[in-house]
Formats: sequence, structure tokens, C-alpha cells
Amino acid sequence: MYPFSFQNPTRIEFGLDKEKEMGKYMHEYGAKKALIIYGSERVKQSGLFEDVAKSLREQGIEYIECGGVKSNPTISKVREAVAMAKAFGADSVLSIGGGSCLDSAKAIAAGACYDGDTWDFFKGTPVQKALMIFDVITLAATGSEMNWGSVITNEETQQKYSIHSNHLFPKVSVINPKLQATVSRDYLVYSAADIIAHSIEAYFTAEYRPEIIDFLVESNIKTVIRTTEILLNNPQDLNARGEFAWAATLALNGLTHLGISPYGFPNHMIEHSMSAISDVPHGAGLSVIMPAWMQWYQSQRPAQFKRFAKEIFGLDKAEDGIFALKAWFDKIDTPTRLEQLGIDNKTLAEIVENAAQTAIRAKVEKTYTKEAIEAIFALAK
Amino acid sequence: MYPFSFQNPTRIEFGLDKEKEMGKYMHEYGAKKALIIYGSERVKQSGLFEDVAKSLREQGIEYIECGGVKSNPTISKVREAVAMAKAFGADSVLSIGGGSCLDSAKAIAAGACYDGDTWDFFKGTPVQKALMIFDVITLAATGSEMNWGSVITNEETQQKYSIHSNHLFPKVSVINPKLQATVSRDYLVYSAADIIAHSIEAYFTAEYRPEIIDFLVESNIKTVIRTTEILLNNPQDLNARGEFAWAATLALNGLTHLGISPYGFPNHMIEHSMSAISDVPHGAGLSVIMPAWMQWYQSQRPAQFKRFAKEIFGLDKAEDGIFALKAWFDKIDTPTRLEQLGIDNKTLAEIVENAAQTAIRAKVEKTYTKEAIEAIFALAK
Repeated sequence: MYPFSFQNPTRIEFGLDKEKEMGKYMHEYGAKKALIIYGSERVKQSGLFEDVAKSLREQGIEYIECGGVKSNPTISKVREAVAMAKAFGADSVLSIGGGSCLDSAKAIAAGACYDGDTWDFFKGTPVQKALMIFDVITLAATGSEMNWGSVITNEETQQKYSIHSNHLFPKVSVINPKLQATVSRDYLVYSAADIIAHSIEAYFTAEYRPEIIDFLVESNIKTVIRTTEILLNNPQDLNARGEFAWAATLALNGLTHLGISPYGFPNHMIEHSMSAISDVPHGAGLSVIMPAWMQWYQSQRPAQFKRFAKEIFGLDKAEDGIFALKAWFDKIDTPTRLEQLGIDNKTLAEIVENAAQTAIRAKVEKTYTKEAIEAIFALAK
Repeated sequence: MYPFSFQNPTRIEFGLDKEKEMGKYMHEYGAKKALIIYGSERVKQSGLFEDVAKSLREQGIEYIECGGVKSNPTISKVREAVAMAKAFGADSVLSIGGGSCLDSAKAIAAGACYDGDTWDFFKGTPVQKALMIFDVITLAATGSEMNWGSVITNEETQQKYSIHSNHLFPKVSVINPKLQATVSRDYLVYSAADIIAHSIEAYFTAEYRPEIIDFLVESNIKTVIRTTEILLNNPQDLNARGEFAWAATLALNGLTHLGISPYGFPNHMIEHSMSAISDVPHGAGLSVIMPAWMQWYQSQRPAQFKRFAKEIFGLDKAEDGIFALKAWFDKIDTPTRLEQLGIDNKTLAEIVENAAQTAIRAKVEKTYTKEAIEAIFALAK
């Protein structure tokens, strides 16, 4: 096994009505002045915002609010909220929403403790300090609720970049499966694709992997497939909703990446260019790129692709595993072809150019040349 | 899924030579005066103690030492070390050894911050405070390196009890597979039994279990079986050693108990009476009690026992899974019958009495009556 350091200090509060305890949790950590960040006004209409805000007031925690975070969250919204947090003297950021909202909260938390522009972090400046981060996660997908990462899009430069820092672990994340039961059918299947993408990146790209880590990845994928099918029939099945959410958390909280050899995130790298340029939902971009990338890449890890086919779908041939995953995406109705995303050849050329630039930044430009990225996209037509 | 709170702040440093960084890790947490606790003099003869101690001196960390911790660690040794820690003004306890040593370190850390007798905690006084805990774990089994528990034996009262507290998570645990490669053949197989025991308790006793949790438990058991067989042939296989160690950690760091309905630790409860009275190795006691308990208990969870047979051994019948586990214990040569432990009828009667008392303390006396415990032991003859 390869050496590793692992520490994940985030406290998870999982269960019905836990969001109503948020004020209590924040009080335990000494929070007194919070910026609440959220996305759509639905969190107000549903009463969720008020349930959480009330729990803050009961603990004497003051707050201001900033709404309107969109999926593929932008640095401009982050900058707006950073200015608000600084003016207010916030000691904490509370996200009520999905992964986009929480990723924004993390960037805001770092930006509020920094004199320069928050985008500097995404260009390489290390995060030295951050406000305390809390969240009620309303959509399971990104795993942001139990990790140290944040992905933000700079809409001016069309760069979708990530930051990572120990300062960005949430203090407390609330996962209430019932709050996730109102997610639309589309976002359920996009989320399924996202969780599977988080699972397969290192699974296929790391040359050495202890089997105990493979088991964990396969557990997450099998759980997502099983529970997605249950939820498409019955969105209110809270056990399935809970397992789906927990698979999302486990897929990217560090545990699936321990003791393995170096690995990449090529599907995410390429998809980030897709959603930066054409603003497609991240999960929809991933379900298009994944089967194509797998076909393109499989010859490099034949044994692992064979294992995937067997463990996930009970099939003997590596290629059949890839087809089965694509067929499953088709079945649950998340896109598998570029044209379903409305990406034409002109846009595609921009995406390829953008991804090739990102590959240079990620130091994988020898593998992910412009030609290679074009070849992968050709398999997604 | 059932509601849960989960937080595990322990930092794991996994890999070769990580023990030589212990001083650096402790310095990061502000440690200045440590009590080093260890068991056998072998940690000195091997040079391990000096490697670790040198790293402390390099960081200006003063230390005193207390050796001689035995397996089934005793409150008398803990009391001795608590007095030393208090006199020295220690701010931290560093364990260099296996689970017994680390469990002692946890009790010492709590006792050094308490005016009364350390055994009070085991009688129910909550731990309010503890010195910082660090460890180099030289035997994988108890999972103590990433959890909040400690099990100590009061040799006067013949009580083997546990405490749990958020204050007892180690700050940093070093897992170096190479340090574990010198574990004797006997302790390897006892450890295998211990990890499997940690895995099956909630697996069989919780009525409701999300499948994602079952997958994780089964991953740990399958990993232990596979890697034990590798290690019996080649104790120096460091990949297998590492996976074995990581399975031990994952089996009892909280992750396998999330979202499930209430559960018990009956095998541990009964075994603790065995090792409290007759001082058998904990894992050896467990490999005797487990197959017997499983036979006695299986009718209460037929579906789960069927699942176990299928997932772990590829067998169709529930009972065959139990026989397969017992046969595997026989194959690796860890005891499966009381007589192999040298426990005669007189001692057994004392053990039954002790376990029945513990059952009252654990509020499971309706299920684990004296007659029930006798019936379980009858299956282990």
C-alpha cells in the first residue's frame, strides 16, 4: 500500500429534522455572526430557510443572507458574498442548498479571511484561514459536505477550477434525506452520474489499488444504481434516499483514495470544460463523457475494467461493463451523447481547447492532448 | 435509515517510517511533556522505542516512560501510570504498542485529568477531559487507533469494562505495516478473529441495516480472510499487512455502525468475562465464542445469516456460513473449542456468572440469562 495521511474532522448530523438543530450546532462551535448562502428561492417557499434561521435566532446567532447561487457556481457571486461577509464581520458561513451552494460557501469562507481577490486561491494561492463552515445539504452528489474541496467557475475567463484546503472542511453538515426528496427527476439522475464519476476516476486510473479500497468504491456504485432505481419509482423512499446520500458522501470524503498509487480526475477535468463553456449540468456532462472515456481508456487497465464489469454488472467482459453502464444511463434518462446536451461542433471546439489548457495546468498534457480529448469526444457522438 | 451523528477527528499517518515523524506530529499539536507507555521490552530491543523517542527529543518534547502493559490491560498498571503522569505534569500520552497499550494510554489520559480513581470512569463517571493521545500501533486488531473507546480489566473485581468518550480519540495514530510484520503467528490469527468479531456484532444484531453498511462490513471480513492467508504464508507481505491493518481500523471506527437500528456486542460481552477470569487472549476467546453464538442466534436473523454465507463464502445456506467460519478458524489455527483454551467446568461456571452480571449492567439480561449463556457455551464444547 502507498503511504497516506488521512484526517476528516467534519461532523455529520444525519436524520429527519436535524436542520432544526443547526443553531445549536453552530453555538457549540462558538458561531455568533453568520452569512447564510442559498440558491433558489424554493428554500424560502418550502419553509426550510425559516426552520434553520429560527434555530439560529434561538441561539442568539445574528445572520445576513445572500441568495441566488446557481449550479456551476460563479466567482462573481462568491465575490459579492465575500464583500457582504466582511462588512458584516461574519465568523461563519452557513450553506442551505446543494453542492454548488456549499462550494460557494467554502470559497466565501476563505475569501472573507483574505485581503486579495478570492479567485487568487483558484490560481494557486494557498488558503491560510477560513470562517467556520456549516451546511444543510439539500442535494446529494458532490460530497462537498464531508470534504475539503470547492469547485468554482470564473465566468469571465471560462475557467472552472478547484481548491483544496484543510480549512475548508465543514464543521457540521446536516443530511436530512427528507429534504432531498424534492429534488427533480433530472437532478436525481445527474447526481447518480456524478457520484459514479467520483467513484470511477481513481478506480480506473490508479495502477495499484488495495482490494479493500476497490470494495468500498464498488459498494458506492452498487448502492447508487440500486437506490436510483428505487427513487425513480418512489421519490419518497427515505431509506433509499438516505443510502443514496451516504454513498455520495463516502464517494468523495477521502476514504476511497487511501493507500492507492497516483491517480487522476480526467472525466471531471474534461467535464469542467463542458460546463464552464456551455453551462450544462455537471452530472449530465459526466454521463456523456464517462462511457466515452472508459472506451478510450480501457486498454490501459484491462484487469480493472474486467473487475468493474464483474462486480457491478455480473458480466465477464470488460467492454460489456462499459456498455452496461451506458445502457443504464440511457435507462435512467441521463444523457450519453453530446447532441443531447445541445453542444454543436463550434462549441465543442472551444471545449476541447479549454480542456487542453486545463490539462496543462493539471500537468497531464502528455496524455490529454487536444487530439486525445477530441478522440474521447468522438466516442460520445 | 436511522439518524446518526458521526465525527472521527483522528489523523492517521500510514506508511513506512512514519513513526520517526511522531515528534513532529506531537509538536504540531503543542505537546511538550509526554508519558510514553509501552508493553513488552521488545519495543526497546527492536530499536522502535528509540526511533520514536529520538523524534520527540528533536522537537524538544520531554518524556518519561512506563513499560510492562500486558494484554488484557489492568487498572493497576493504569493507576501507576496516572500517578507518574500527574507527578511529571504530562500534557500527552504516547502509546508504542498494540491495542492493550493504547487502551491503557486512553485510560491514563483521562485519569491524569481527574482527581478521583480512574476506575470511576468504568463504573459510569463521564470523562470530561483528557491529555492528548498519540500512538504508534504495532498490532492491528482492536481499532483503538481510530476510535473513542478503551477496555480495561479490574483484576481485583474481575471486571473487564469499557469507556467511550469524544476526549479519547487519538490525535495522531501511526500505522506502519512493517512494524506489524513481527507479530507472532498466534497473535495474527487472534487479531483476525477480533476484527471479524468487531464486524459481525452489529451485522447480525441490528434488525434494520442499509445495504451500503453491510457492504462495508463484508469488505472488512473478506479482506481479513484474504490477507490472513497471505500473511500466514509470508509475514513480510507489506501490502497484505497494510490491508489487514486498515480493515482492523475500519471495522471499529464508527463507519460500520451508521444508520442502523440498535445493536449489541454479545460476543464481546461474553468474551470479556472469559478473559477477565481466565486471562485468555481476547481474540482466542472470540474465535471460540463466535461460531457458538452464531449457531445459537441465527434463527433470529435468518436472512442476514443467509446473506453472510453467500457474500463471505459463496454458500447458499445460512448454517453453512457459520460452519465455514468455524472451519476457517480451525484452518488458521485459532481456537474454536473451550478445551483448547484450558477452561474447565469450574472456571466456566465463574465465567457464566460474570457474564450474567455484565449482561445486567448492559441491560440485556432478558436475552442473556445465565441459561442462555450456558447454552451458548455448550455449543463451544
